[in-house]
Amino acid sequence: MTQSVGIVTPQKIAFETPITLSSGVTLPRYDLMVETYGELNAARSNAILICHALSGHHHVAGKHREDDKAPGWWDTMIGPGKPIDTNRFFVIGVNNLGGCHGSTGPSTINPDTGQPFGSTFPLVLVRDWVETQVRLADHFGIRQFAAVVGGSLGGMQALRWTITHPERVRHALVIASAPKLTAQNIAFNDVARQAILTDPDFHGGDYYQHGVVPRRGLRLARMLGHITYLSDDGMGEKFGRMLRSGEYKYGFDVEFEIESYLRYQGDKFSDYFDANTYLLMTKALDYFDPGRFYGGDLVAALREAHAKFLVVSFTSDWRFSPERSREIVKALLDAKRDVTYAEIESAHGHDAFLMEDPPYHNIMRAYLNRIAAEVNA
Amino acid sequence: MTQSVGIVTPQKIAFETPITLSSGVTLPRYDLMVETYGELNAARSNAILICHALSGHHHVAGKHREDDKAPGWWDTMIGPGKPIDTNRFFVIGVNNLGGCHGSTGPSTINPDTGQPFGSTFPLVLVRDWVETQVRLADHFGIRQFAAVVGGSLGGMQALRWTITHPERVRHALVIASAPKLTAQNIAFNDVARQAILTDPDFHGGDYYQHGVVPRRGLRLARMLGHITYLSDDGMGEKFGRMLRSGEYKYGFDVEFEIESYLRYQGDKFSDYFDANTYLLMTKALDYFDPGRFYGGDLVAALREAHAKFLVVSFTSDWRFSPERSREIVKALLDAKRDVTYAEIESAHGHDAFLMEDPPYHNIMRAYLNRIAAEVNA
Repeated sequence: MTQSVGIVTPQKIAFETPITLSSGVTLPRYDLMVETYGELNAARSNAILICHALSGHHHVAGKHREDDKAPGWWDTMIGPGKPIDTNRFFVIGVNNLGGCHGSTGPSTINPDTGQPFGSTFPLVLVRDWVETQVRLADHFGIRQFAAVVGGSLGGMQALRWTITHPERVRHALVIASAPKLTAQNIAFNDVARQAILTDPDFHGGDYYQHGVVPRRGLRLARMLGHITYLSDDGMGEKFGRMLRSGEYKYGFDVEFEIESYLRYQGDKFSDYFDANTYLLMTKALDYFDPGRFYGGDLVAALREAHAKFLVVSFTSDWRFSPERSREIVKALLDAKRDVTYAEIESAHGHDAFLMEDPPYHNIMRAYLNRIAAEVNA
Repeated sequence: MTQSVGIVTPQKIAFETPITLSSGVTLPRYDLMVETYGELNAARSNAILICHALSGHHHVAGKHREDDKAPGWWDTMIGPGKPIDTNRFFVIGVNNLGGCHGSTGPSTINPDTGQPFGSTFPLVLVRDWVETQVRLADHFGIRQFAAVVGGSLGGMQALRWTITHPERVRHALVIASAPKLTAQNIAFNDVARQAILTDPDFHGGDYYQHGVVPRRGLRLARMLGHITYLSDDGMGEKFGRMLRSGEYKYGFDVEFEIESYLRYQGDKFSDYFDANTYLLMTKALDYFDPGRFYGGDLVAALREAHAKFLVVSFTSDWRFSPERSREIVKALLDAKRDVTYAEIESAHGHDAFLMEDPPYHNIMRAYLNRIAAEVNA
């Protein structure tokens, strides 16, 4: 029987050693917000790191309070008896550097100025995140993760781990991801960024001091994002051309149900997410291109890896289509690495990686069973 | 040998009989801006109406002045010796009601107030445009068009003509179009609209009186539009991940060439296009659903038609995919109507309908030759 990890408490971990990022900027210190589930075994061999996507964070499973409306963002996947089984694994969720859920980021107060970092917070590459996560592993005394796991931008982190720190990751689970963005992916990100950057309330990124947030821009960015998370067919099945009132109103209020859904999602998101973090996350996505540091050759990059790989894609995902996952698989095979690939039939588009779907969860469970046997979890 | 129609002069035609639109609003009068190419024959049987898409207008072919940088928007298709051959056909281009290129629209001065219509200009259905175009046919003494031709939203007008005025259209050429929008199509339109509607310079649609235009919103709408006009592959071939400076800049200025392209397109568009017209056009797209008036049955709607049909789609068009054109073809066959269908191999996405491509133009030419023979053009 599966159940929840229950009530969980996040912890903020301070890293007081300076870190120099890919951009050349050095942060003298930073905090990472984390949650952990399950117990680290004596050999410290059963740890799994969960890397989050664009709008994710450290709160991956369980609830903070009994009356929380929703559990962590991947609660379907992680818990006692679930595919990532917290009876066997020690699971770490982390809010990435630059995030807006407690880790040091643009909305954090810069101790040097007493003001939020805002526009002065540096942009980061996925490899920078991996460096901060390596220090996080050190903090827990974890020499090697049993697995680094992530969907979308999270999968890029898992991939980067295997290249930069091959000895420290046993398995990489790369879900609904891509080896680098296409021009179309970058284009969508740039429209989202321009919506934020041109919002009069953005104030060059230093909106905190003006007592406003670029809510309009963030709302548009999220609405657009949601279109790319869902499939055309899935959206059609769920909303179709349903009219809220049954007839045309000849105005700009909500007419079609899909409009209601998108505007609601945009409004909700703009209430809590930090616009500078959104910008930073989309740039990390754009920049990700591990082959770039190897003469444009992804195969050469992946020859660095020692890990074994599970790559998963979803048939109706058009943001990071199965074709993109197959590029990773092909490169791994060319690099003579051990890879299992599953293309899951789903109508849920990119969002499918977050959903509870038996064929998907069965693959994950089977693969993680193998890992558990290897690490005696 | 093909050549241009040369220097052309638009004309504004006044319609002084009131028209009651689908919304119930009555306009006491309106103007339509048109251009014509070629000569109407004695039988008035060789006229072709060109219906425009979202951002189009009456200036379809030729130039207004020798030193115009570019000719009309479909100059590759229309001219002496071109597929729509102005040596044989009398071609009419029209700016639709609600447009911003000379026809009566939101930016037109309302004679009752001395101010632009702005927010008081009514939204329209495609069927309303067809009614105004019927009056345009009457103006020229054209009882029956040899063909009504359009791509995208223009194709919807051609389709609507055959249903509402079956006796008045001999052939309908429906290119890169759809029988109605999907939820995803509506979603993209709504993000574009929200960008405009929430721009602080929109002023509820009455920005003219404030001496501003909602340029930010219109720019975002156009950037987003462009993503949907191009194919993922086509964009990849043209721009890929090319960096303007060859290296990452860790900032929000243009880094990737695709960003430069989109921002340029957005800037250019926001300089000349009217935001209220953009809103009106996207709503006409959303509302189009000819089956709706026949119990949701497109086949029943198309049983009204007497016309013969050419339906054309492009393989990489994901805004109005071949699947959507096949829905039209299937419904026409079920309605026992005469239809020719061509699915053209192209990497240019939705924009392919505007491009000069031999397989596409050869189909158009062959079909129009048949029309010319029928009407003795």
